[in-house]
Amino acid sequence: MALKKKPVTGMKDILPGEMEIRDYVLNIIKDTYRGYGFSAIETPCVEHIENLTSKQGGDNEKLIFKILKRGEKLNVEAAQTEADVVDGGLRYDLTLPLSRYYANNSANLSAPFKALQVGSVWRADRPQKGRFRQFVQCDIDILGDATNLAEIEEILALTKALKRICPDKAYTVRVNDRAILKGMADYSGFPENETDKVFIILDKMDKIGLDGVREELLAEGYAPEAVEKYTGLLAEIQNDAAGVRALGEKLSGVMDPAKAENLATIMETVKAVADIEFGLEFDPTLVRGMGYYTGTIFEVSMEGFGGSVAGGGRYDKLIGKFTGVDTPACGFSIGFERIITILMDSGFKVPEAAGKKAFLYEKGLSGEQFRAVLKKAQEERANGTRVAVAQMNKNKKFQKEQLAKDGYEEIVEFYKDSLK
Amino acid sequence: MALKKKPVTGMKDILPGEMEIRDYVLNIIKDTYRGYGFSAIETPCVEHIENLTSKQGGDNEKLIFKILKRGEKLNVEAAQTEADVVDGGLRYDLTLPLSRYYANNSANLSAPFKALQVGSVWRADRPQKGRFRQFVQCDIDILGDATNLAEIEEILALTKALKRICPDKAYTVRVNDRAILKGMADYSGFPENETDKVFIILDKMDKIGLDGVREELLAEGYAPEAVEKYTGLLAEIQNDAAGVRALGEKLSGVMDPAKAENLATIMETVKAVADIEFGLEFDPTLVRGMGYYTGTIFEVSMEGFGGSVAGGGRYDKLIGKFTGVDTPACGFSIGFERIITILMDSGFKVPEAAGKKAFLYEKGLSGEQFRAVLKKAQEERANGTRVAVAQMNKNKKFQKEQLAKDGYEEIVEFYKDSLK
Repeated sequence: MALKKKPVTGMKDILPGEMEIRDYVLNIIKDTYRGYGFSAIETPCVEHIENLTSKQGGDNEKLIFKILKRGEKLNVEAAQTEADVVDGGLRYDLTLPLSRYYANNSANLSAPFKALQVGSVWRADRPQKGRFRQFVQCDIDILGDATNLAEIEEILALTKALKRICPDKAYTVRVNDRAILKGMADYSGFPENETDKVFIILDKMDKIGLDGVREELLAEGYAPEAVEKYTGLLAEIQNDAAGVRALGEKLSGVMDPAKAENLATIMETVKAVADIEFGLEFDPTLVRGMGYYTGTIFEVSMEGFGGSVAGGGRYDKLIGKFTGVDTPACGFSIGFERIITILMDSGFKVPEAAGKKAFLYEKGLSGEQFRAVLKKAQEERANGTRVAVAQMNKNKKFQKEQLAKDGYEEIVEFYKDSLK
Repeated sequence: MALKKKPVTGMKDILPGEMEIRDYVLNIIKDTYRGYGFSAIETPCVEHIENLTSKQGGDNEKLIFKILKRGEKLNVEAAQTEADVVDGGLRYDLTLPLSRYYANNSANLSAPFKALQVGSVWRADRPQKGRFRQFVQCDIDILGDATNLAEIEEILALTKALKRICPDKAYTVRVNDRAILKGMADYSGFPENETDKVFIILDKMDKIGLDGVREELLAEGYAPEAVEKYTGLLAEIQNDAAGVRALGEKLSGVMDPAKAENLATIMETVKAVADIEFGLEFDPTLVRGMGYYTGTIFEVSMEGFGGSVAGGGRYDKLIGKFTGVDTPACGFSIGFERIITILMDSGFKVPEAAGKKAFLYEKGLSGEQFRAVLKKAQEERANGTRVAVAQMNKNKKFQKEQLAKDGYEEIVEFYKDSLK
């Protein structure tokens, strides 16, 4: 019986060429993060359904791949609702499993705990170009550190990893703080319980510009004085540490000035100790979607590509919701699949340490000749060269083209008559 | 609301110490296999339920984690059977997805295709010590090569990987061929359609010995002459290439002598070209469980540990069952979880290239002092040292003990008064 050849809807088979790039990028990321003292951990891909549907994952909870109960616990005929037949689901991110992991294992973990997670997550999203239902997330999180050392080290580590992946690309890190976002809205006179709606409009700044934001706020019915004060404030802000401090003074009536000082310190310290070049800007329009952020937020863009390649922030209240014990936390996530797409589209080739060679031998070698070919391959391998050995196919030209496509451009041929 | 802290039944959280060993071992395996010309590939963790339940996976099919249909396709209330509510499942091995992958992508793959797969698989087995419901498999497979180059290269690559992981352990590769198994049974006079039952008894040889095998065969009701001829044959066989050839001559009435010659050649060639030491033995009692093997079979044991740490064989008929096109195939699987357990139990430590250091700084440093500590960390990191920076906790002794447990044995302390 022939089976279905295509992968399940929205998921993909990864070909050797892409896989080589993925492994290369992952190794750089892991190696860099380990250099900054992060420890790799892993959680199961399957989580308790109760944990996944606990309303911490926002809209992602609608997209869970659910897992059927097994054995005696399953009674399909009597079942009325999904809940009757399901006891698990595939994780939709790495943050929720990390919270459970921390609650389960904190007695055996350093404090603060610096976690590095690389793993697949699943979301039953509507399939579309470049978006898959199984994809890799790549997160660092520091749990148990309330100081801005967490933000500083995460920005340093992440920019270093990105720079090692694409040394000739420029990156810009944009930073903001949820408290500053709120302070600006309060200062301008928006109603306190409506600031989330204001931020949703502000978040469109990069698409609709300041005038567009003004128009949408007015159309939403907010007081024209508030809208003018807000857009005026946004227009005048400088994007460096001094700008953050100046804004902090202006907002001192509605916001603790320590918030601005904290962000300015993060910016100054990162710039002072970074050993690579990248942009670092205060962006008062940076919002970040997830509701769980409580302080600093950041996003990284890459020269020549719209959207972001990394993002994160501080979420001091999330872990407590899972564990019952408040734990300060700050995380940064690399858009792994986005970076792979960028590299694939730009024809990126993984640098090979010691080259690749293909050995093709004619059919019908004597035992001694065959062993001579393999011995030669073994010698090259011992020197670090990747050697593929194959018998010549009838269509040698096609075989060589295929090998070249796999990066085996140097091809050595062995014939009965020329081997002693 | 506090959530469930434990992982789902039978699956586990992986702590930093184990994770370090896992990543280390995986990197060696991947690097070694790439040196032998294998290309890493990946398939989705979710497969079509029809593919998973196609009776190619033997008993493993009973253990599938099944995935619920979504959206309009799901109607729990009207459902009568499992099939009504399920459309996918988590893969239970990497061989079935590989067959689908090959059918889907062979136009874009080299011929022969040398696949390297590392990935989690899931089986809803009864949980027991050291057996988990999610575990990593680590396979190489050569598709489209009918020659014994496939067997030879796989044995060379796998033993090299094992030797790099544990250089001071001795390994023994035991080989056999399904045709020789069958030839010995036919030669001894067992009924032709009962050979599978004979092999199940033979497979117990390492536990019950030759006498035990004799007794069980007799108890099963086989003719005493057949049993005597069979056990006599088993007792006299030499375990080297010459022994294989001698057996081939003896079985020439019931088996094509090319089968024995092929196995003898594999053994001789591997020994002639291997650049590391390991045992290589013909084992006429080696059976291997999976029914899909068609030719050579192999198993690897490690000095001081019962059971095997790797196994595999040729399965020339399996891919054709999925694709409709017969494709010769030979695979070798490393018992990854078994090796990790052995390393963990023996207190194995991952060798660090350039060391690990922890920097602890006193609370309340000036901005300048703080930057000085971070700059020093950046310098050490640039030299390849892994540096964890943390503020001193109140209980510094405990903090240092935790760091030491994570491998940060060298700890540098920074104080307000001593930093300029």
